[in-house]
Parts: sequence; C-alpha cells; structure tokens
Amino acid sequence: MNVQPPVQVDETQMANAIRALTMDAVEAAKSGHPGAPMGLADVATVLFNRFMKIDPKDHLWPDRDRFVMSAGHGSMLVYAIHHLLGYEDMDVGQLRNFRQLGSRTAGHPEYGHAMGIETTTGPLGQGIATAVGMALAERMMNARFGDDLVDHHTYVLAGDGCLMEGISHEAIDLAGHLGLGRLILFWDDNRITIDGSTDLSTSMDQVKRFEAAGWHVQSVDGHNNEAIAKAIEAARADDRPSMIACRTVIGKGAPNMGGSHKVHGAPLGKMEVAATREALGWLHEPFDIPEAVYAAWRQVAQRGADARRSWAGRKMASPKGGAFNAFHEAVDARALNAAITAYKHRLSHDAPKVATRKASEMALEIVNGTLPNSVGGSADLTGSNNTKSKTQRSITPDDFSGDYIHYGIREHGMAAAMNGIALHGGLRPYGGTFLAFADYCRPSIRLSALMGVPVTYVMTHDSIGLGEDGPTHQPVETIASLRAMPNLTVIRPADAVETAEAWEIAATATDTPTLLVLSRQDLPTFRTKHTDANMTARGAYVIREPKSGRDITLIATGSEVEIAQEAAEALAEDGIRAAVVSAPSFELFARQSADYRCMVRGCAPRVGIEAAVRQGWELFLERGDGFVGMSSFGASAPAAALYRHFGITAEAVVASAKDKIEKRKHS
Amino acid sequence: MNVQPPVQVDETQMANAIRALTMDAVEAAKSGHPGAPMGLADVATVLFNRFMKIDPKDHLWPDRDRFVMSAGHGSMLVYAIHHLLGYEDMDVGQLRNFRQLGSRTAGHPEYGHAMGIETTTGPLGQGIATAVGMALAERMMNARFGDDLVDHHTYVLAGDGCLMEGISHEAIDLAGHLGLGRLILFWDDNRITIDGSTDLSTSMDQVKRFEAAGWHVQSVDGHNNEAIAKAIEAARADDRPSMIACRTVIGKGAPNMGGSHKVHGAPLGKMEVAATREALGWLHEPFDIPEAVYAAWRQVAQRGADARRSWAGRKMASPKGGAFNAFHEAVDARALNAAITAYKHRLSHDAPKVATRKASEMALEIVNGTLPNSVGGSADLTGSNNTKSKTQRSITPDDFSGDYIHYGIREHGMAAAMNGIALHGGLRPYGGTFLAFADYCRPSIRLSALMGVPVTYVMTHDSIGLGEDGPTHQPVETIASLRAMPNLTVIRPADAVETAEAWEIAATATDTPTLLVLSRQDLPTFRTKHTDANMTARGAYVIREPKSGRDITLIATGSEVEIAQEAAEALAEDGIRAAVVSAPSFELFARQSADYRCMVRGCAPRVGIEAAVRQGWELFLERGDGFVGMSSFGASAPAAALYRHFGITAEAVVASAKDKIEKRKHS
Repeated sequence: MNVQPPVQVDETQMANAIRALTMDAVEAAKSGHPGAPMGLADVATVLFNRFMKIDPKDHLWPDRDRFVMSAGHGSMLVYAIHHLLGYEDMDVGQLRNFRQLGSRTAGHPEYGHAMGIETTTGPLGQGIATAVGMALAERMMNARFGDDLVDHHTYVLAGDGCLMEGISHEAIDLAGHLGLGRLILFWDDNRITIDGSTDLSTSMDQVKRFEAAGWHVQSVDGHNNEAIAKAIEAARADDRPSMIACRTVIGKGAPNMGGSHKVHGAPLGKMEVAATREALGWLHEPFDIPEAVYAAWRQVAQRGADARRSWAGRKMASPKGGAFNAFHEAVDARALNAAITAYKHRLSHDAPKVATRKASEMALEIVNGTLPNSVGGSADLTGSNNTKSKTQRSITPDDFSGDYIHYGIREHGMAAAMNGIALHGGLRPYGGTFLAFADYCRPSIRLSALMGVPVTYVMTHDSIGLGEDGPTHQPVETIASLRAMPNLTVIRPADAVETAEAWEIAATATDTPTLLVLSRQDLPTFRTKHTDANMTARGAYVIREPKSGRDITLIATGSEVEIAQEAAEALAEDGIRAAVVSAPSFELFARQSADYRCMVRGCAPRVGIEAAVRQGWELFLERGDGFVGMSSFGASAPAAALYRHFGITAEAVVASAKDKIEKRKHS
Repeated sequence: MNVQPPVQVDETQMANAIRALTMDAVEAAKSGHPGAPMGLADVATVLFNRFMKIDPKDHLWPDRDRFVMSAGHGSMLVYAIHHLLGYEDMDVGQLRNFRQLGSRTAGHPEYGHAMGIETTTGPLGQGIATAVGMALAERMMNARFGDDLVDHHTYVLAGDGCLMEGISHEAIDLAGHLGLGRLILFWDDNRITIDGSTDLSTSMDQVKRFEAAGWHVQSVDGHNNEAIAKAIEAARADDRPSMIACRTVIGKGAPNMGGSHKVHGAPLGKMEVAATREALGWLHEPFDIPEAVYAAWRQVAQRGADARRSWAGRKMASPKGGAFNAFHEAVDARALNAAITAYKHRLSHDAPKVATRKASEMALEIVNGTLPNSVGGSADLTGSNNTKSKTQRSITPDDFSGDYIHYGIREHGMAAAMNGIALHGGLRPYGGTFLAFADYCRPSIRLSALMGVPVTYVMTHDSIGLGEDGPTHQPVETIASLRAMPNLTVIRPADAVETAEAWEIAATATDTPTLLVLSRQDLPTFRTKHTDANMTARGAYVIREPKSGRDITLIATGSEVEIAQEAAEALAEDGIRAAVVSAPSFELFARQSADYRCMVRGCAPRVGIEAAVRQGWELFLERGDGFVGMSSFGASAPAAALYRHFGITAEAVVASAKDKIEKRKHS
C-alpha cells in the first residue's frame, strides 16, 4: 500500500529516499553495503540538490559536473540518486535487481554499465586518484577553450579506506601541487572500518594531512545540511582543491545498528529495516517513493537541463566550438596513418639503430604533431622514458595550456589520473615509467582494461637489458603478468618501424588500453623494406622465410628479434633453414584468423626467444618446442654481460634449434 | 701514489671517504648514482660514528641497530660505509667492481648479496615500509623478551621519491598509529628529482605531513654535524617515530654539478671528479683511503663489538635466553607435522564442508598453537580473510605483546611490513587480503620473492566465486600473474585437508614466500581417506584413477576440483573413464620428477578447470587439450549464477572432455 504523508518535501525526505532505497535494495539482494549510502545521504542530497550540474537526458554532456563515488561499495547511493533524478536506464526494476546478473546495478559502480557512472570504483582510493585526472583535464580543457565551454567541478565521496590507501597520497599531493581548485572531496568521517573502529589502525589527522598537501580544508557535521552547503560554497570559492571532513554516522537512520561496523557490508535484516522506517518516519512500502519526493529530485535534473541548454547556446556562438567538438571526436585515423606511413618510409630508408624507447620518442613527434589532444607525461623519468616530444610544454600550477604532465614519482597516481583524463573526455593521455614499475600501478592498469579506457602506457627498460640497476629494476615476469590481463594490448616492438606502428595502434584505440614495452638498449632497424601495411597490427609476422621450406621457426619479440636473426644466419651457414617471426603483440596475434596463425607458426619445430619467463608463450609454442629466456630474477651487470650470463644469445638459440630439429627427426 | 696528509681525522674526513669511494666506484662502473651518497655522507657519518650499534664481525647479531637505505639507488653509501667499517666481504675489490657481474656491490642494495644489507631496496618507498615492519618487530620482541635482550633502533634514509610513493603514506600512518618510537627516518631534502627540481611535481609540506601522522619531526641542515647529532638524540628521546628533515645538497662536494639533477644518476666524469677532489681537499688516489680514516671508522665497529659482547653476557644470564634463541631458530617442523597430521586425521573423518578461507582459520589454530612466533594480521578484512585464530590478541600502541596486527586498509604497507618483520628475525608473519588486491601489494610480494623471505600471504575470495562484489573484486588474471613470479609458491587448496597441508608448507618454508589462494564459498572435503603424506607438497596428484585406464584426465585447482569430480561421475555414467587430478600448486608440481609428472598428466587427452585465465596451464595442457575457465573479467551476481553464466560447470567439462576424446580418435 502506498502511504504518502502530506508533508512538504525537504532535503531530509530527499535523503531518506536514498536511505530507504538503499536498505530495500540490499535487503532484496541479500548482500551489499548499506552503511555508507545511509551515512552519506545528507551530504549527497545537499550536493545534488543545491550544486550538481548534470542533465540525466544528456549524460555525456561535456561540461557536466563529475561525481565520483570513491567509496565504491556504497554503490546504492549512486543508483538511488540516479533513479530519483530520472536517468532513463535506472528504473525501479534495476534497484530491485541490485547485484544480480545482467542488471545495471552491479555490486560496485561500473563505468559503462549505467548512465552517469563516471568511473568504476571499488578498489579503494582509485576514485580519488581518477578524480584528480578529471579535475586536471577540466583545467587543461578550460585553458584551451575558456570558461564559456569548460567550467565544471569534480566531486568525490571518499571513506577512511580510500584515505588509508597509498594511492590517495599520490593523488592528494599531485592535486595540491597543481592547485586543482575545481576538485572537492568529501571525507566520510564515520570512524568505522570493516575490522571495527578506525582506532584499530589509524591515528591520522586528516585535516592536517590535507593542509600539508596544500588543500583547503573544512570540517562539518555531515548531517547538518546548512553547514554542508556553506562548506561547499566556501570550497567552490577557494582556489585550492578542497577537502570537507564530514563527521557522519555510518548507517544513519538505523536505530540499533547505525554507528557500528555491522552496518558496513551486510543487509540490516527485516527487523532493523522496519525499525529504521519507524525511526525515519518513512512509512512507505519497499521501493515506493512519494511523487513529491520524486518531484523534488527532478528539479535538480531540470536545473541541469537548463544549464546544458545554455551551454549549448554558448558553444554554438563560440568561435572555438568546432575545435572543441573535434577534441571530443574519434582520432583522425586517416591523417595519422598518412603521417605514420610517410615516417615509416623514411625509417626504412635511414634504418636507424636506436633503442625502442628512443624510437618511441621519434614516433611521438608524429603522433603529437598530428593529434592536437595528445597529452604526455612520466612518473619522473622523462629523460629515460623519452616521453616528451620537442614541442610539448609542461603543465604548471599557473598554466594548464601545456600538454606534458610531470606526474612525480607516483606511478599509481599517474595511471589513475590518466584514466581520469581519458574518462573526462577531450584529451588522450599517455604516460611513462620503467616496465618493472608496472607493478606499482597495476591496480589502475586493471581499471583501464576493465573500463576499456584507451590510455597508453609507455614502459621502458623492459628486460635485463636495463643492465646495472639490477633485479629490482629488471622485468622478468612482468610481461607475462600483463599479457594475462583481459582487454589490455601489450606491444613489444623490435625496431623503430614496429615502434611507429605500435604508436599508431595505441593512438587510434577506442576501448582498449595499450601498453608499450620498450628497450633501453639500441636495436637495429630490420624493417628496411617499406610496407604500407601495419605489420605490428597482425601481432606476429614472418620476417625471414627460407625459400625451400622451414627446418625450424624462431619466434622472438623486441630486443630478442635481433638475436633470432643472428641465429638464423648462423643456422643457414650450417645448412639449416630457419624462419624468423617477429611477434610484437600476443593479444593482436590471438585475434588473427586460424589460417594466418597457422601460417606464421609453421609446421617445423619452434624456438621462442624473449628475455622473460616462458609463461604465455603457449600461444606460439608446444611443450616440446624450445625457449630461450629467463627463469629467475635478473642480476646487476652491464646488459651484454647479463645476456651472456643468462644464456640469451644466438649461440643458445642455435643449440636449441638443432636440438629440436634432432628430436623431431626421432619422433 | 699514496698521499696521506697529516691531518687529524674528523667526521668531515670520514664523510669525504664516502664521497670519494662513491665517485670513484661510479666512475669505474661508468654507471650509478653519486648524488645521494655524496649528499647524505655527513648525515650517515654522524649516524654511524656517534649512534649506530652494529658489529661487522657478527652481522646478524639480533640486537643490532637496523640501517635501511630506502633511497636504494644510493647503494654506494652502504658499500662505502661497509668497506670503511671493515665488513670482511666488502674489500676494495668489491668497490672497484661496483655493478659488475658476480660482485656483491649490485646496482641497488640486495639482501643476501653482502653482509649488513638488511633489505633489498631500489623500488622507491619499500625501504620505509619494510623498516616499519622491522621497528614493529623490535617492539614485539621487546614485549616478549625485555630491554635486556631487545633494545635497538631502526634508521632509514629516504629521498623525495620514497616520500612521493603511495606506500610511504601507508607506512607512515601505520608507524605513527602504533607509536614506533625506535624508528628514525632521515629525509634527504635535496629538492631534486630525476626530472629536475621537486617544484615540478610536489608542494608537500613534509614536516606537517609527518606531524599529521603522529610523528616527532625536526628540521636540520644536513651538512651541520652537531645539528644532526642533536636531532638524533632528540629523536631517540621521543616516544614517537621520528622524522628528521635534512636539508642537503645533492652531490655535495662536486663544485660544478652538486645541487643539480645531473649528479643524480650518472658518473661525474673525470674533470668533475678531479675538481671534487680539489674542492674537498681529498688528494688521494682513487679507492685509496688513509689509514687514519680507516681507523676512525673501525672505532665504530669496535663500539658495536663491545655492545654485542655485553648483550651476549646479558642473554647468557637471562632466564629468557633459551626462549629467545628458539624464536630465532628454524620452525620445529616435526612438531608441526605431528600436529597437522593429527588434525588431518580428524578432518578426513569429519569431512567438513567449509570455504577454504574458513579451513585456513581452522588450520591456523594448529599452526599458531604450535609455533610460538607466528604473527597474524589482515588489511582490514579480518572477518573475511579468517586470519585471526582464537587465542590471538591484537597489537595496540600500548601493548606489543599481542600476535595479531590490524594493518588497516593498506595492502602494500602490510606486505612490506611483513617483509620487515621476517627480515628482523624472531617472528614469522602472515597477513590477509582479497586475492584481487594482490595487485595493490605486488611490488612488495616481488621483494619477498626476490629476497627469499618466508612470509605467507593469505588471499581469499579467489575467483568469480566471490559473487556480488563484481569484477573489480574478482581475480581472473591474478593467479596467472602470481604464478609468473620466480620464487613464489602459490597454493590454491581444494578442501580443508589440502588447506592444512598448504599451511604446513607455508609455515616451514625457509627461503620462499607462500601465497595461499582461498575460496569464499564452501567446498566439500574430498580427502576423506587420511594420508600421512603431504600430498599438496607434490603440487598435483591423482585423486581419482579409473581402474582400467584413462579416456580423459581432468585437472583442476581449488573450488573447481569439486566440478571436476562431478564431471568425472557424469562421464562414468556414459562409460567414459575419467581420471581427476587436484593441482594445488604449479610451482611445487614443476619441481617433481619427470616420471611423477608424466604419471599425473597421463597420456589421455586432458581438460584443465580453473575459474581464471588459461595462461600458465601449459604446465599441464597441450595446445589441443581443453580448458574450462575465464577469458574475460567477471561480473556482479551471486556466485552460482556467475559459474553458470561463464560456463564453468560440470556440464561444460563433460562436453569438453567428450570433444577432446573424439578428436583424439581421429588424430
């Protein structure tokens, strides 16, 4: 029965709608996290009711405010609000099917599953760091297109977990340094974590911590609406990023369980739900919302729709409107292809002997010269990653018109910020670090892949070829660990031409991140015969085919292709016919036709060569095939000494090839 | 020619010896990082000359002070000091062979490569977080054995890179919360990073930041010895962990390059080396140290030797001496085996149906009941990881006598702290989180593996079986990524008996970390027939062998063994003879004899079953074999629905088995 009390709808009612939908959905799912949405309902209501600028009818409107629920387990807060605002894909059926197969209401907010979800959250701290990227992108786009077209805020709700995670430090430091004044973070200070009171594990003075990072900080009662509103106003008025510490009661409204860690991650149970209804004076059936409450929430949507219309008018009138649109459109793949093809012509002719990290820098001159919205950066290894092209200018706190970001020694923060920049729209980010430190940003790489965000990771110093810095800096298992990840294109080019092709693939990707694996050491250009075709896009291809058939097929990637070629020459001297395959990308090869794959692999025995572990090579190798690579961590010595020490040499390949040919004869 | 000026040796001379050895070694290697050792030479000299308590003749003396060079690229600081102190394995030949193959002087300090290196550093921030574990272990051992036997400090040198990395936040917050007063961190405040000035990427007020975390903080001129000494005295007197901000000049002494980022990571070059010698008044040949300088440094060693002797006397006299020794000895494997075997008897009889995370908790009752120095913990998922056994008591800032650590929502900090606890000696740590968050602590897991530190990672919620929390929380590629890592034993047990066996392996490991992969969902006990032998230690073993030969072999791990068994039953009904192999650990299986491996795999076609990606399964499968698992990220829904949705079912296994049998017939 639908009981609608004849009260005037105030923000308390609007917030209680969030609380009720949350506890009802979690109850229906028999799983979920009611604590955070109920505790944050007042903060969220004030934020949306009085400030948020979004239009549910145009959920991708570029100048909308961004809302990030960094405490992603509180997903029902987002779903409830979207339902109340009238997002067309968030009907009550979605709420009733919270956390069920095929619903848009996943356990944690998933980008792309429902309108208005700006980023996937759940792994703690990621939301904050991604929001920093969004807020940075906003300022960069503002510097390019002015206040008329770009002028919005990024709001983040974060819990104690988000603020304990290390990534939050990297994000907060970077945001404070850059002075991202349009970033406003609400800390859900409920003093509860899963294990119990926050006293169990932290004594951090968060206010002082954020101040140390250069933030504007305020503290409010998270259930005092006027105080919340005043704080948001002050935050918006300040030039610095703002943190608003909101003292809240987790599970606010639940009379017996509120304030306790028991309300964090489990349904309240029938009794407590009933008691909560009673305590809140919310006497409606489950999932039942009074029309007056809907109407109040829809006013927020209406305000946003008006703002969007006004913005559209400004864009129409702006001389920069066309360029603004172009920034948001797909990459001009034809123009890029023409530029890359011309460049490949020159490369084939010049045949430079350069490290692929250097070749990447050369290719970036083309990419950055062709794509106006390419944005580079590095986690403090600019000169080593070769990520800055000649015309790029560094972003500074005073000038966001540049196109190169000094992310600092913050691989994790960089990767998450790149996700945020890409998700914001308008810009295409890439960023560099050493490949060994892919581990430092792996959780954010995983989110790039899960969300399908086309960022590019430039990862150099890709093997024992790094040399003297030793095993902590030498990837061995890293490439395999990245190839294991769904929806990530890993490319390890072998020369300058393949590197150019790899950049073309990365720069035109639409829903897959690309990770470039690049050498420190110089490599000869073997692609001396120009092809218009992007051979790297095939994943693997034959670069040496004996005329009269194969005795053996040598398959290598990156810096080891040179070794395979040497070995093939040596084998030829012994009358052994070796084909050589360059295999820059396993993921791209796996997508080729069975016929093509069979042709590349051939029927002769095979030897794989890669200065890394064998795991993942089953794409090319059978159990009986040979592999010349690593099976332990590396060591500290000059690169050439290490290759000899670990037996990754043409001689070793020749020996393995002869062994496999011999074994095949007797099988 | 050996020119020894007749000057009295003061700390400046002692420090200049570090500077000279550093620039000479980097020059000889033609690679390395002179900037940090030269900048920190004064701080390090004061610390060692006036405070450090170490005995080079007994480098593992348990009550020694710990020194951690978190800015590991400054490894020459450590090697130079060890040489000057007279560590017998650090003769001048080692310095001349800096960064060369087989030398002890690796590019970054490597634990186990040379005496006195307390932990491997280089990946930035790890040293700080590992030192927190050491300082925590010191307090825990002190609580058990008193000031007479345990009373030492942990000193850390850290740079801007260490303090920018997220892991530093986790470590600093944890140390401040626990009030680890014996931890003293020196910040090398040289205002330079690789990209240039720190102004490029950070505006952090580090003093305020550490104060916010509850630390005692001082600022000094890092080239004023008396000020440094006074600060160390004050730090030692304070109950809180201490940070001493040392304003230094990077590459101090180099007249033209000092103070610039050019001196960070490359040789100074002959000219600047000569100019530095001139500027320092250090007119000795390369690698030549005046005897008087050696003598001064050897006094430090002498003071340490005296302290050690005095400590040895106290231990001899202490009633706790025997127990103290026992804590430092290898685990009593026989006692543990007896307890585990008795427990396995009961399990085989009772055949409980429990999640392996619950089975892990049950096994921990045995492990923790048998090993007095086992120390548990979780990154705020105690109730979900089931890591706390009944008698365990939580560590608090006021009482370190407990044996359970609330690490907070800090997976990375936890893993590094566990490394530190294990490296400190005396305690055996384990700690839990969700398997998906292995990514958050992967850099520290890698260091566990690289150093060969026997910590145990308890990683639960190991697949889509996690259910409604969705793809951010569901490992898919995680197991493969961990199996790729050298020297890490990954074990995914399938029932309570295998879980007990896995714990026996983990608890007795000496130079390999173990990572337990555990289910959220209940699994039946299939090991209902007791065996004394630890079958899990074989890595894989046959649990169902058809009497008259195999038509197919089904190989599964963890929660999927149940599915394999169901499928075998269903196949039997169709007259198809299926063997079933449980394969809890690929690494342990790879170490078995070829005969054993061949016997387990069998000659029939095979189907692998694991709710994860296929990568890594080449250990068991040929290309033509079947695999029932995942090839994409997961989804949000109840576990049973997800297993059906992704086709990881007995029916799918049956279909794959029949297909492979059919294909074999026609091949």
